Amino acid sequence: MVITSEEYIKSLNDGRIIYYRGEPVKNVSEHKYLSVPVKHASSIYNLQQSTEYKDLLCVENNGNTISKFYRIPVNSQELMERHELIYETTRLGRGQFNIVKAIGTDALFALLFVAKRIDEKHKTSYYERVKKFFDYAAMNDLSLSLAQTDVKGNRSLRPSEQEDPDMYVHIIKRDEKGIYVSGAKAHTTQSVASNEIIVIPTRNMSINDKDYAVAFSVPANTKGITMIARPLKEVETTLNDNLSVIGKENIEVETVTIFDNVFVPNERIFMSGEYEFAGLLASMFPTFHRFTAISYRAAMADFLLGVGKLLADYNGIGDKSNIKRNMASLISYKEILKATAIASSQTFMYDKISDIAVPNIVFTNVGKLYANQNYTDVIKNIVDIAGGLVATLPASEDFDNPDERKYLLKYLKGRNEKETMDRMHLFQTLREFISSLGSLYLAGMIHAEGSIEASILEMYRSYDYSESIKLAEYGSGIKNKL
Amino acid sequence: MVITSEEYIKSLNDGRIIYYRGEPVKNVSEHKYLSVPVKHASSIYNLQQSTEYKDLLCVENNGNTISKFYRIPVNSQELMERHELIYETTRLGRGQFNIVKAIGTDALFALLFVAKRIDEKHKTSYYERVKKFFDYAAMNDLSLSLAQTDVKGNRSLRPSEQEDPDMYVHIIKRDEKGIYVSGAKAHTTQSVASNEIIVIPTRNMSINDKDYAVAFSVPANTKGITMIARPLKEVETTLNDNLSVIGKENIEVETVTIFDNVFVPNERIFMSGEYEFAGLLASMFPTFHRFTAISYRAAMADFLLGVGKLLADYNGIGDKSNIKRNMASLISYKEILKATAIASSQTFMYDKISDIAVPNIVFTNVGKLYANQNYTDVIKNIVDIAGGLVATLPASEDFDNPDERKYLLKYLKGRNEKETMDRMHLFQTLREFISSLGSLYLAGMIHAEGSIEASILEMYRSYDYSESIKLAEYGSGIKNKL
Amino acid sequence: MVITSEEYIKSLNDGRIIYYRGEPVKNVSEHKYLSVPVKHASSIYNLQQSTEYKDLLCVENNGNTISKFYRIPVNSQELMERHELIYETTRLGRGQFNIVKAIGTDALFALLFVAKRIDEKHKTSYYERVKKFFDYAAMNDLSLSLAQTDVKGNRSLRPSEQEDPDMYVHIIKRDEKGIYVSGAKAHTTQSVASNEIIVIPTRNMSINDKDYAVAFSVPANTKGITMIARPLKEVETTLNDNLSVIGKENIEVETVTIFDNVFVPNERIFMSGEYEFAGLLASMFPTFHRFTAISYRAAMADFLLGVGKLLADYNGIGDKSNIKRNMASLISYKEILKATAIASSQTFMYDKISDIAVPNIVFTNVGKLYANQNYTDVIKNIVDIAGGLVATLPASEDFDNPDERKYLLKYLKGRNEKETMDRMHLFQTLREFISSLGSLYLAGMIHAEGSIEASILEMYRSYDYSESIKLAEYGSGIKNKL
Amino acid sequence: MVITSEEYIKSLNDGRIIYYRGEPVKNVSEHKYLSVPVKHASSIYNLQQSTEYKDLLCVENNGNTISKFYRIPVNSQELMERHELIYETTRLGRGQFNIVKAIGTDALFALLFVAKRIDEKHKTSYYERVKKFFDYAAMNDLSLSLAQTDVKGNRSLRPSEQEDPDMYVHIIKRDEKGIYVSGAKAHTTQSVASNEIIVIPTRNMSINDKDYAVAFSVPANTKGITMIARPLKEVETTLNDNLSVIGKENIEVETVTIFDNVFVPNERIFMSGEYEFAGLLASMFPTFHRFTAISYRAAMADFLLGVGKLLADYNGIGDKSNIKRNMASLISYKEILKATAIASSQTFMYDKISDIAVPNIVFTNVGKLYANQNYTDVIKNIVDIAGGLVATLPASEDFDNPDERKYLLKYLKGRNEKETMDRMHLFQTLREFISSLGSLYLAGMIHAEGSIEASILEMYRSYDYSESIKLAEYGSGIKNKL
Repeated sequence: MVITSEEYIKSLNDGRIIYYRGEPVKNVSEHKYLSVPVKHASSIYNLQQSTEYKDLLCVENNGNTISKFYRIPVNSQELMERHELIYETTRLGRGQFNIVKAIGTDALFALLFVAKRIDEKHKTSYYERVKKFFDYAAMNDLSLSLAQTDVKGNRSLRPSEQEDPDMYVHIIKRDEKGIYVSGAKAHTTQSVASNEIIVIPTRNMSINDKDYAVAFSVPANTKGITMIARPLKEVETTLNDNLSVIGKENIEVETVTIFDNVFVPNERIFMSGEYEFAGLLASMFPTFHRFTAISYRAAMADFLLGVGKLLADYNGIGDKSNIKRNMASLISYKEILKATAIASSQTFMYDKISDIAVPNIVFTNVGKLYANQNYTDVIKNIVDIAGGLVATLPASEDFDNPDERKYLLKYLKGRNEKETMDRMHLFQTLREFISSLGSLYLAGMIHAEGSIEASILEMYRSYDYSESIKLAEYGSGIKNKL
Repeated sequence: MVITSEEYIKSLNDGRIIYYRGEPVKNVSEHKYLSVPVKHASSIYNLQQSTEYKDLLCVENNGNTISKFYRIPVNSQELMERHELIYETTRLGRGQFNIVKAIGTDALFALLFVAKRIDEKHKTSYYERVKKFFDYAAMNDLSLSLAQTDVKGNRSLRPSEQEDPDMYVHIIKRDEKGIYVSGAKAHTTQSVASNEIIVIPTRNMSINDKDYAVAFSVPANTKGITMIARPLKEVETTLNDNLSVIGKENIEVETVTIFDNVFVPNERIFMSGEYEFAGLLASMFPTFHRFTAISYRAAMADFLLGVGKLLADYNGIGDKSNIKRNMASLISYKEILKATAIASSQTFMYDKISDIAVPNIVFTNVGKLYANQNYTDVIKNIVDIAGGLVATLPASEDFDNPDERKYLLKYLKGRNEKETMDRMHLFQTLREFISSLGSLYLAGMIHAEGSIEASILEMYRSYDYSESIKLAEYGSGIKNKL
Repeated sequence: MVITSEEYIKSLNDGRIIYYRGEPVKNVSEHKYLSVPVKHASSIYNLQQSTEYKDLLCVENNGNTISKFYRIPVNSQELMERHELIYETTRLGRGQFNIVKAIGTDALFALLFVAKRIDEKHKTSYYERVKKFFDYAAMNDLSLSLAQTDVKGNRSLRPSEQEDPDMYVHIIKRDEKGIYVSGAKAHTTQSVASNEIIVIPTRNMSINDKDYAVAFSVPANTKGITMIARPLKEVETTLNDNLSVIGKENIEVETVTIFDNVFVPNERIFMSGEYEFAGLLASMFPTFHRFTAISYRAAMADFLLGVGKLLADYNGIGDKSNIKRNMASLISYKEILKATAIASSQTFMYDKISDIAVPNIVFTNVGKLYANQNYTDVIKNIVDIAGGLVATLPASEDFDNPDERKYLLKYLKGRNEKETMDRMHLFQTLREFISSLGSLYLAGMIHAEGSIEASILEMYRSYDYSESIKLAEYGSGIKNKL
Repeated sequence: MVITSEEYIKSLNDGRIIYYRGEPVKNVSEHKYLSVPVKHASSIYNLQQSTEYKDLLCVENNGNTISKFYRIPVNSQELMERHELIYETTRLGRGQFNIVKAIGTDALFALLFVAKRIDEKHKTSYYERVKKFFDYAAMNDLSLSLAQTDVKGNRSLRPSEQEDPDMYVHIIKRDEKGIYVSGAKAHTTQSVASNEIIVIPTRNMSINDKDYAVAFSVPANTKGITMIARPLKEVETTLNDNLSVIGKENIEVETVTIFDNVFVPNERIFMSGEYEFAGLLASMFPTFHRFTAISYRAAMADFLLGVGKLLADYNGIGDKSNIKRNMASLISYKEILKATAIASSQTFMYDKISDIAVPNIVFTNVGKLYANQNYTDVIKNIVDIAGGLVATLPASEDFDNPDERKYLLKYLKGRNEKETMDRMHLFQTLREFISSLGSLYLAGMIHAEGSIEASILEMYRSYDYSESIKLAEYGSGIKNKL
């Protein structure tokens, strides 16, 4: 049953341990800066209640209205609707992705996919546990975060070979009621704004890494969990800024998430030592999540595309050949992502074991790798369009002081006067995008949902070359028939 | 009614005027070198008769079996089938596109689309003429070529401003029965192997260019038409080569096609002075043809992808990080083209005026521009995989001389002995691909179906920015609602 | 005579009109944030006094010790020393360029070059004026800023065609003693920390733009000059940050610089209506300044190269093929800039008219264009090496709180423990580089010293094709001899 | 003493064993096709005798006039002159490199460099042997080829681990007078036109590969050497072509060079088992040869630059923004190579042990890697300028037939009539460049003088990071002083 944003916000005041700039945070939704990510997450709950967007975000399920994020896709149509859901909610977030239900369900789809397979081999009952948790989350409209990337220590050593055994989250004790885990995960997005933290392995595991083959979900206020947030400079410097809004409303936050002897009860354990399935789980989550990634990145690209077009026009350079080339590159970036999203929906793989439609992994991976490799070109193109004011624009306060305002309005106009302040909004927003927000977007577009190299390795490994090889043999005369 | 390859080949012996290397060609299908392009074209007719591929290539239409190329698409499904038709016949052509029915029908779709609009304004009856010709071509299973690119003379002058008025094909005389045209078209692919040559304008026209706004179709043996072929070095040097086959079977040929006072009867005139529609026709043809382009280029890329994988393995370097990166780039190239083809089919625009499903022009243009801009990277990647032997391999005759063969088999093996000759086939085929065939592919991948700059200009001009701009205004705080 | 940093700092307290975030600034060197750019500029004066760097920065001139920036180069050796001066002072500024003497002398070299030519044609005495001012600046060791880029208004109109005539700085009145100018210049770097502001035209001018063909120098506290600074977020957010230092010391600042009826006395006027020389001046300044640009950018690249190598090692991934590729790209970026700097020094053009060694403009332009076009790739490569912590690193305050510190030191170590805090410094510094500083660097690397398109146009226009054409004609058989 | 081209040509008629397309070649200089590479090589001897170029090619040495290629460089000036020598002779070869003295001397410089070091450790006398051979070659003005790249077999195994021990050239027997070697080298350029074949290892060697650590020189007609040439399609198809000349005069040829129990007398053995120096020799040769590579590639790029400019003008599109961008890219390609050549000369490393000036390896490697990675972009840019006729141009015979000529001259003109035939020459030459010659240039520009990956690995390994690291530590606040 979908809940209201008030209910959601209230649910976060549960004693969870968060630090921000060295200070403990009492109630995340009332914190001066961290409240912004909460507000961003809550907008998903608001939209669910709106007449205009209810159909986009909600769906009927056995007589209940649930979030559409919680619908397990079984065909092209539902995959396309999931794509639209992510694409449109990103647009509704002013071009910023809203992760709190998307990533968790991607992880749960992967867990459902894998759990059935573990159960078949080991006669375990993980699938039932995952499904039960899934239904509980859906019915209670939970927000979820996903902790996958371990801090890793010395990257040339396997988990069990590390000097300090805690460099990857692992089981340190087992008893009848459950397990105890320790370790730390990096880059956990919106953990501070989530009800539950789902944990899965970050890589394949060998028999020696058995205790590291662990997956589970725990409430964010579970004893032993400490979340240390990155500083939200984009919020800190924008809260009083009249010229831009994203920093006030549409920011997400990452934490280093520490697990210090955390207890997980049996019913929430989804993998516990079945090391031979760790790699499958570690790769199935990105399989689902890359579909999410190309969907939200297409929307984010759409935002930049619009900013580029407006600035080209406001700057009066929309007719220049080089600007058209820049714009064609922005259009291509967005539309190639869109095309791979559509193609991966249309050519999905139906998994009979878990009854899930898996988006075509070739297209999602190709789209995601394209997004990684070309994002800095997008930035180059849009900065080329914008010009130097994207860096040297005075502050919003300067526009408020009448002594300066008279000069600024006179001199910072572009094509015509009535567009001047709109142009300033665009410059300032783009400045935020490539400065305060810059590191996040760069790192995100290059590393999130797997690094460039990880994408390349998987693409090379998983691609089905058989038809291409047949053609090569036929085309080069090795064989006489295709 | 589909015809046999024998009937097709026979139909070309009609007195058409062709020159090859300075010599007039009597019967194109018996010419030592030009017979190869004819053979290539005829393979489409052979496949129609085969049990295995009949369903791929043919379709029922009012009780007749016609070539599927001649089906006017009206929905996603039929667009996807047209994509498959082009993709698969290109694979069946050893990775080489077979143009003789594809390009003509693309042009006819565009003519149907435009003719209805001319008729509406000018009370002409072009649509009926085009449709009648279309049905005639379909029922007689004609092969068609399309002559669009004029020789252009001084590119900074419009057609009517040229010193020599013949730099663009134009009407030089009109009488009751029809028109007389003169001029020349460059790069007319497979004109020598076609029954009809369809002519359309290469650009938009102003009122002064009225006589240049002309479209029609004439048989290839029409009096006044002279075709001068490019030299087929890839055929000349491969005919006796045991190591590669493409040059013996799968080559197409271009001509400079001269129209010297050619008569066109009224029923074959599809535009004649309606200059304000010249631009629409000049851009609608590529709209359809770009869908064809991304389809055949995906297949061509599939061929290179397979060659790359086999060579990586035969060379024993498939596990190297840089080779994987090269391969990921080849995979991406093919699959981005595939994705844009699927996406443009799924999101087609239905034209109610002419009852045609037009593939989404954004995706076709994005895919085609991507193909243009990245083809040389494909070549760089595959040459990087292949190594120097792709250039320095001895000739096939060296493998036939036992004195040399003993050395070559011993020393040119890669990972193991039994693959040696296959590896040689791949090197030799790839060498042909980037040498004899190289200029054709480079020019084709960069210029065919419109140059890079043309694609950029059209993408910039035709893109619908409205949703992107809304998002930019909302995201930058200019507006408060999306 | 070189002065001390104290003398320099004192000289700035002269009543100049500056605004920062809407507030007037009393004494720039005591302002909380603007004092940082002053401090950065003053470091050049400090180094002059140090035993270690005196020889690098100073030179004897007629018995006086002056700043080496003020030496007019006349041969390869002196150009190389100027390159070293800029390269090394940038390194001494922690990889940040120190502009206050470099840019002004580049402008003065251009003015000397052009003034002699104006004088020859118009029998004026600009050269004497410029030389006198040059000597004055050198003897008093002034810091200089250069205001070139006008705000431009509607970019499709020439200066004299603008609706508001003030969109380019221009002469609004002339009297016996001098001229009065109005207008505004964007992106004036370090104007707040300079003694004089030199003004030159931003483009070529036609006869109608006569009043816009104006060049001069005025003290920064001249009546009618208002400087509105960009907000220094990189300083604001770093002042209390223990993990990074650049924001505390090594920042420069840009202003929108407004000229409101500013009087320029005759002896400081360097061009006044000689419109046919405006274009030469507008292009000669970048000619000199691009040499400066490739020199400081090589040093900046050296900083990133070092950060990349340390992070690759600390992250324990220095042996990965993809990381080596990233590093090779960083090395190439720096060394191609170095190579073009060396080559342009070695193949300088000696201008006999003004007695100045002009760095080879082909190599400076090629180097500078390469720097523009590849900077975002540098960022992509270094972020790829760094990993996600470059965005999600907790704040320095978190490392000060012992409750968090114990976790952070344990979990954020890389290859080994003793490097952990160094690794944190690198992450935090790189985060600043691509976030708070990001917009400045992106805009600067893409637009400063002329945009990408401007570089392309000039390169195409000014290149001497004669030898290349001879070779093309010989190589293609058009001519029989080279 | 420099010899005449007649003497040179005569010297090749020495009974050497060559195969071309399966046929043994009697006298290479009289062979229909292989005579072209001989003619190309001989042009170096012709130029030596010419008044105009004597100073470029010759130098006095102890009272003898020798080829300047044979001067061992000891300072910047001589390195710059060697650069000019290679650059200018490439231009004089119509943009085609002339390798026969360049590569051999590069190899001999490396052998001198290494031999001294082996002698120091092993008390051998290799240096004396190399020097004696060097003087003999210089005094007799020999043409030399260099055989380095072994055929390699299974690339994942070391030389001594291969199933067939002959996959790398190695010593199979030793006696008092010398050694016997077997194996095969790939891609030996101009071996058929050389007096001597110098052999060096292709990689570093371990103690088990001792017999593979072998270097020597033998005459090309030594018993047991068989050379199998690649087919010269660019010659075969151009010999009768009036429109292009390179294929008639300026082609080089590669062979697979087989050593079947070849005897090498002691005085010609330059390494024989000193495996720990194999790697140094394998990397010192490319160190010298990369300087040669950037020099000839700059000239080759100059040719393409000129072709591009002429075609842009003849096509009448020289004022288009996209064409200017293409041209700026061609200019940059050439000039970055030039800049790295100049910079590496200016900052050479003087080796006191062998008394040789080694060009700065950073700049040569950076320049060479840049040339590798960007060559396909050069091709893309020039094809974009040229347009489709670069592929579809009729044959030269068509221009000879008056019936066709009238049409072709009329219709294939560009900007104006008098340039038509020049334009045809350029199209045809460029077509040869990217078709018949295409595979050679692509493979050469990507693989010759070491592959892209090899360059990256060496750049990463050999770069001196110390100053960059100091700056990174200072810039990030790890250290307080540079």
